[in-house]
Amino acid sequence: MGYEEFTIEGRNAVIEAYRSGRTIDKLYLLDGCQDGPVMTIKREAKKKGTPVKFVTKERLDQISETGKHQGVIAFAAAYTYAEVEDILEAAREKGEAPFLFLLDNIEDPHNLGAIIRTANLAGAHGIIIPKNRAVGLTATVAKTSAGAINYTPVARVTNLPRTIEELKKEGIWFVCADMDGTRMYDLDLKGAIGVVIGSEGEGVGRLTKEKCDMTAAIPMKGNIDSLNASVAAGILAYEIVRQRLKG
Amino acid sequence: MGYEEFTIEGRNAVIEAYRSGRTIDKLYLLDGCQDGPVMTIKREAKKKGTPVKFVTKERLDQISETGKHQGVIAFAAAYTYAEVEDILEAAREKGEAPFLFLLDNIEDPHNLGAIIRTANLAGAHGIIIPKNRAVGLTATVAKTSAGAINYTPVARVTNLPRTIEELKKEGIWFVCADMDGTRMYDLDLKGAIGVVIGSEGEGVGRLTKEKCDMTAAIPMKGNIDSLNASVAAGILAYEIVRQRLKG
Repeated sequence: MGYEEFTIEGRNAVIEAYRSGRTIDKLYLLDGCQDGPVMTIKREAKKKGTPVKFVTKERLDQISETGKHQGVIAFAAAYTYAEVEDILEAAREKGEAPFLFLLDNIEDPHNLGAIIRTANLAGAHGIIIPKNRAVGLTATVAKTSAGAINYTPVARVTNLPRTIEELKKEGIWFVCADMDGTRMYDLDLKGAIGVVIGSEGEGVGRLTKEKCDMTAAIPMKGNIDSLNASVAAGILAYEIVRQRLKG
Repeated sequence: MGYEEFTIEGRNAVIEAYRSGRTIDKLYLLDGCQDGPVMTIKREAKKKGTPVKFVTKERLDQISETGKHQGVIAFAAAYTYAEVEDILEAAREKGEAPFLFLLDNIEDPHNLGAIIRTANLAGAHGIIIPKNRAVGLTATVAKTSAGAINYTPVARVTNLPRTIEELKKEGIWFVCADMDGTRMYDLDLKGAIGVVIGSEGEGVGRLTKEKCDMTAAIPMKGNIDSLNASVAAGILAYEIVRQRLKG
């Protein structure tokens, strides 16, 4: 992903972008808007020297990609993908065992955004996504991530099974989320770990699944087939948090 | 919610609606579509005597509320709200301690749909929502619930704090999800329980919160404020599942 203009939409998303030190190229604000969050954004813009343009709602609606700009659209450089090494380095800096997410074929931007958000709050060090058959870091992903995209690195790789092979050499264990697995409460998920989540329709691809050391199942009692992918990622992430806290 | 025509969109949602015994008034199918799921739907329609009309993609797009009809739109009676008593009865029938969700001010249909889906799979007996300031059982909610709306009862009440008061007399304990609470792993969540989830912006309302017996916090390590409401509901639901399985 090279340099390109990119919009960040919505008040919280723009405030978070400033707080995280992201460079905003220019800012469009709804003319006449004076409430608290907008004043905060104006102060940040002044501090950072961002050119501000006051525009009509029609103009904002026209530019908006998400349809939910809340009177604020910032133009920034594209979200930059990290390298896998950056994610490992983040874990090293914190003196923690690596905790990663690997997403196989997640095509829904709301799911990717929600998983970045969860990864950030669960204390994961980063997310690895494949270059093909997956959604990238779009404006909808950024908005759904509630600002987490500015803190939690996302790396893109060409071949997910090969990346798993390489990371195994670093001592990371891989657990694949799948209904056919061992009940997650009965697995040891405390060490260096990569959690592999698949799309809701297809699950984790066969080649990727074969590289995993463990398969974890979320127990299900109901009448339907599967959880939402971002909910499943959250449940598994917090079973890992629980086991890590227990020590 | 009285009787009204209502659309169910997407292949899985329509198949689930048939399987759950819901009455479909009529069915629109994309003309010429012959794949497996569509054949299943045709068989169900024949069995139940549903009038089928073959239409163009343009016609389906025009009718679609979700924009994701996948060539299939069913017209059914509105999803019917259950009574709170039906939810308690469902628990009694299964010989289980009641496990309910109460949603305070959840206005996003994707969140409500995902929570119904999670509640179904976690083995909860039903969901209670307030009549005001909350989304109802719309087509988007039905689609996002992935069919769970046909199995997991949703009741609407006028006054959530008063409903909590009444349910306490039935021996149900209420736990409110809030950052300021006790770490969820340190609470006893095994008995008859109602989980209260608030909106992402405002959390659980003060009056509702005051009625709760416990406040449960999901531990958070990250840089941003909060989890997505449906992810938070999922994480808390599965801490309850874990404690119940442990016995």
